[in-house]
Amino acid sequence: MTDANDKPELSEEELNARHADKMRKKKAARDKIMATKTIEKGLVIVNTGKGKGKSTAGFGMVFRSLGHGHKVGVVQFVKGRIETGERMALDRFDDLVTIKRMGEGFTWETQDRQRDIDAANQAWEAAKDMIQSGEYRLVLCDELNIVLRYDYLDIDDVVAFLKTEKPDDVHVVITGRNAKDELIDIADLVTDMTQVKHPFRSGVKPQEGVEF
Amino acid sequence: MTDANDKPELSEEELNARHADKMRKKKAARDKIMATKTIEKGLVIVNTGKGKGKSTAGFGMVFRSLGHGHKVGVVQFVKGRIETGERMALDRFDDLVTIKRMGEGFTWETQDRQRDIDAANQAWEAAKDMIQSGEYRLVLCDELNIVLRYDYLDIDDVVAFLKTEKPDDVHVVITGRNAKDELIDIADLVTDMTQVKHPFRSGVKPQEGVEF
Repeated sequence: MTDANDKPELSEEELNARHADKMRKKKAARDKIMATKTIEKGLVIVNTGKGKGKSTAGFGMVFRSLGHGHKVGVVQFVKGRIETGERMALDRFDDLVTIKRMGEGFTWETQDRQRDIDAANQAWEAAKDMIQSGEYRLVLCDELNIVLRYDYLDIDDVVAFLKTEKPDDVHVVITGRNAKDELIDIADLVTDMTQVKHPFRSGVKPQEGVEF
Repeated sequence: MTDANDKPELSEEELNARHADKMRKKKAARDKIMATKTIEKGLVIVNTGKGKGKSTAGFGMVFRSLGHGHKVGVVQFVKGRIETGERMALDRFDDLVTIKRMGEGFTWETQDRQRDIDAANQAWEAAKDMIQSGEYRLVLCDELNIVLRYDYLDIDDVVAFLKTEKPDDVHVVITGRNAKDELIDIADLVTDMTQVKHPFRSGVKPQEGVEF
């Protein structure tokens, strides 16, 4: 294997030596940077954007935390029709995980705005209780951004709670597209899942294990 | 709750009726679109970008698939020092999941290019075996993009395999930043995890359940 950028061409041995040297420097630089990272704190984490992976990564973090034996809370603000995979996987962690789901599902399924507002408020009360209980290391507020976007919950209330009432050692993960700026402002970690390519465009339907 | 965009101001009842109507139309439009999605096939899924959530969403998809009772293969092309959370969570699915990890870890830890090339090739052989075995519904090639980026594996070989030798009913999930264009070209679903905000910038260290 040769590298077109190396001129004159190096022997495999020279290439390996050069690589080892480069990597040694990279590691030293990285170790030095990481040594400055000393703060431990509960984070507000936001997964937003139009692409796939917001809830998937949120649940990935849930499983990672469960793997460590942490107690985890999950509040589903929008009842997907098809999130069965996660639920069945979480069944194997029923000693560690508590799941709350809001009543009736997403607005364009129920078409009942007032019921959705009530359900969103109940779900948020449940999330606040979990976050403040001292029992959970991580609480996932799945699709909270959706109900915030529809103003079913007051963004100022949510932000004020996260800023002043969330205990220091609890991570809160919030998912859903169209995260509000006020939330992004106070979050510690924000990722925008950007859609590059999506199979629905080629007529592929939602599939078990991928979408649900 | 009032909406500043509605003029003249509507009563709560009118607002709810308007909402129900809007959502009914939205649902009808969505149902119509989804009815055209009829193809089922094993996808090539790529999670790339500089932001967090690539492997996390990859593992989220693994857990979702495991929740359905599917058999899943995981090949780790880069041995993280700290992916303990996922591993411990996967322990609860040892009836369904097979994990292979490449020998010795990431290049700037080992500084041994030839050993890393050998390990990458072994890991790719293991991944191909899993994909072709007919045993697994989903195979996660975690951080494959990293070894492709260093040209430890030939991108043309990998693309040719995925295009012509991957069975139709197997999903392959590939993670890692800097996905090569050749891979993006043949993938069905590509998401770029775009970093908006990262806590390392504020001196926060990698934490159990978040980074590992």
